[in-house]
Order: sequence, then structure tokens, then C-alpha cells
Amino acid sequence: MSVIRNILNSRSYKGGNFFNILTQILGFKPKTLSPYKKAFTHRSLNRRDEDGNAINFERLEFLGDAMLSAVVASHLFRAVPGGNEGYLTKMRSKVVSRKHLNELGKDLGLIEHVQTNIPVTQFGVNIHGNLFEALVGAIYLDRGYKYCERFIYERVIDPYVDIEQLEGKVISYKSLVIEWCQKEKKEFDFEVYEDTGNDELKHFAVKLRIENRVVAKARATSKKKAEEKASKRAYYALQTKIK
Amino acid sequence: MSVIRNILNSRSYKGGNFFNILTQILGFKPKTLSPYKKAFTHRSLNRRDEDGNAINFERLEFLGDAMLSAVVASHLFRAVPGGNEGYLTKMRSKVVSRKHLNELGKDLGLIEHVQTNIPVTQFGVNIHGNLFEALVGAIYLDRGYKYCERFIYERVIDPYVDIEQLEGKVISYKSLVIEWCQKEKKEFDFEVYEDTGNDELKHFAVKLRIENRVVAKARATSKKKAEEKASKRAYYALQTKIK
Repeated sequence: MSVIRNILNSRSYKGGNFFNILTQILGFKPKTLSPYKKAFTHRSLNRRDEDGNAINFERLEFLGDAMLSAVVASHLFRAVPGGNEGYLTKMRSKVVSRKHLNELGKDLGLIEHVQTNIPVTQFGVNIHGNLFEALVGAIYLDRGYKYCERFIYERVIDPYVDIEQLEGKVISYKSLVIEWCQKEKKEFDFEVYEDTGNDELKHFAVKLRIENRVVAKARATSKKKAEEKASKRAYYALQTKIK
Repeated sequence: MSVIRNILNSRSYKGGNFFNILTQILGFKPKTLSPYKKAFTHRSLNRRDEDGNAINFERLEFLGDAMLSAVVASHLFRAVPGGNEGYLTKMRSKVVSRKHLNELGKDLGLIEHVQTNIPVTQFGVNIHGNLFEALVGAIYLDRGYKYCERFIYERVIDPYVDIEQLEGKVISYKSLVIEWCQKEKKEFDFEVYEDTGNDELKHFAVKLRIENRVVAKARATSKKKAEEKASKRAYYALQTKIK
């Protein structure tokens, strides 16, 4: 049933609704809707423009991928002044990995807005990342590099790019916190609840308690990420205290 | 001897001279010289900043490569609306191929300005392309994406990106013109002369004569490119005439 609902929903939205959804996803107001419409159009609709060129999100993936690579390269270049070419290349491939892009697309719920003639369940696992890339491509066409950069910072770099974690020095802050609590024989508890507020996107909030005291709070688009964010905050707070 | 001259030259330029050379190469005035100085510093000098980070052009190659890929992706996306993702990816890899970047770096004579402790003859064949990438990276740091885009259009896309040629439909306009002349039993002649004018960079001018009439003129940074440019002009002029 939910598959059918998705298809119907995606086909029935009017310009106004789509504009609002986009503004929510993008964090700014789009100027021209057409690139975004393309970014949510699946090839199964067989749409073509007057010159016979296919209208779907596949070409936009190419463009978005290029912009993602450039923005992340520029960020890493500045963030890790000691990293050589090989290091920067490796780190970038982690940030823009298929797995990570799929997570990002999934968190933004992009698939819910796809216009398609086939059930979304038939899409491959990479649909989420592909839609995310296409969206970045559409932003570039609509507002240029600066807005692309801003979007990538807000949605990718600021929340999720942690150099130490990327380097494999820290696999998970949550596990570090749990280890610490176990070693120190402290009780801990992650309280997770939905806290969507005024957002169109689903959000989760986490309170991390150690010995019944809230030591960190965080909010993100998935439970796992909210827990990780809270753990990271707690971890640094604990380190400062120990010093 | 010329190797030693290169090394001496490269070490002896003052800020003012470097600024003028850069302005000539870039086609605009640089704001901050430091990224460009880095772009022309070879690792053999073992330079380090106060934090111990290496100062040489290698990290800038990573950044420049990312910007080149993004700008060329955006150009191809718009220039070939019928090209799918696979096509666009293939075309881009032709434009930013090692071979092509080496040609571009060589044409700009970038190697003449490298600061190094080893003779330039010991650099690998890819030094020209590496310097070109590093220069693009420096432009990004100095003036941002827009200037990077402008530079890449002026130095790469406008003069050398020909979709038909990239697709392999036209290997060389010069050979097309020669073929046509032979078939039509017309005499032809390429007159090439150096025409550097006020430019810092060496330039060549070509007059293409068919039956003693100049049918096309062109100017470029190598003989081969000037001939190709003139041939392309002549080719389209001939086609228009034939129709």
C-alpha cells in the first residue's frame, strides 16, 4: 500500500507543495523549479524535451557528483593542512562513498518525492545516493557553486565529516563512551525520542545520561546519528574534565 | 646550460616580476601571491611552514584536479544536452586527460617558473600537467570558483574543447582540409610564424592559403594548435560555401 501511496503522492503534488518541500530539504528557497523537477524524475516515466533529450535525474547525478567532489576537496584541503595528496584523495572517497551518500539521501527522505512509473521497491539500493547527487546537481544549475557549497556544508560536512573518525582513529564515539562507562563502572542511558518540531524531515533527539545526569544532548535525522553526535559531545566533555 | 639558467631564473624573480608573469599566465591580476608561490614550489626545496607542513605544489594538484573536473563537468552537461552519464564521464576524462593537461601546462611554459633544487630535466613527463592542476588550485584559493571557471574556459574549454573532435568524429581538422584540397586538386599552404606580440607567452600565427588566397588565420601557443584552429575555421567556411 505504501508503495502505491508514494507513487500517487509524488505525482499529485502541485508547484506550491513541491516548492515548500524543496525549501525544507534545501534550507533555502529555490529560484527555478525545473532542475529540481528533473532531479526527482525517474527514467521509467520516459519523459523527453522538445529536442528528444531524456528528462530524468541521471545526467544530474554526474553534475552533482562533480560538485560534491570539488566542495569536499576544498574543505579537506583547508581542514587538514598536513595531509598530502594521497591522504586527501582517500579521505574524500570516504566522505563521498556510495554508502555515505545513500545514508544522506535516505535521511532527507528524497525517495518519497520521486516521480516514477515503477514501484520504489524496485529501485536498487543506490537510489538514495543517486537522488542526493542529482539534487546537488540541480542546486548548481539553479543557484550556482556558492549555494551548492552551502548545502554540502550544511548537510554533509558540518554534521558528519569528522576527520578523526574518517582516519579510523575513532570508529564510533558511542562505543568510546560505552567503553569508558564500563571501565569506570558508571551507569549510562541513551534516551531517544522523535523531535520533528516544525521540520518537514523526521528528526530524533537524544539525551545521554551518565549516572542519571544528562551529560549531552543532540538532534539529527536518524537515531544512530543523534546518538553518535551526543556521544561525541560527551566524549570531548569527559576528556576536558579528566584533564 | 639551459637547465641551470632555469633554476637561477626561477629563484631570482622578485615579487613584482612574479606578479607580472602570473597576470600574463592567468589573464587577470592575482590578489594574494602565496598560493601561486606554492604552486611553483617543488618538493625538492623541502620548504615547511611554521607548523611543519610541507610547502610545495602537490596538495594543490589535488584541489586543482577537483576544480577542473567540476568546471568541465558543468560545461559538458550544458554543451551536450543529449549525452547520458556514461557519455559525459567519458568526454570529461578526455578533456582532463594527463596528456591534455601536460600539453596545457607546457604551452603556458609553467615549468620555467618552478622553484626547485633538482634540474628540471629530472622531472617526470607529467610535471607540466601537475603544474597546471596546481595553478588551478591556487586560483581557487586566491579568487574562488568563479575565477577558476573563467580561467578554465579561457585556457582549456574555449580553445580546445571541441565536442566532435572529442567524440572521435573529427580526428584533425588539418587532415580534413588537406584531404579536401587533394580531392579538389587545389594547392594549399600553411604559413606559420612566431607572433608573440606583447605576450609573455610564445604565440604562433598561421595563415592557411588555398590557391594562393588566405582562407583562414589563427593564433595559438603552439604551431600544431594554430594550424588546427585555422583548419577548423577553413573547414567550416568551406562547408558553408559548398552548401
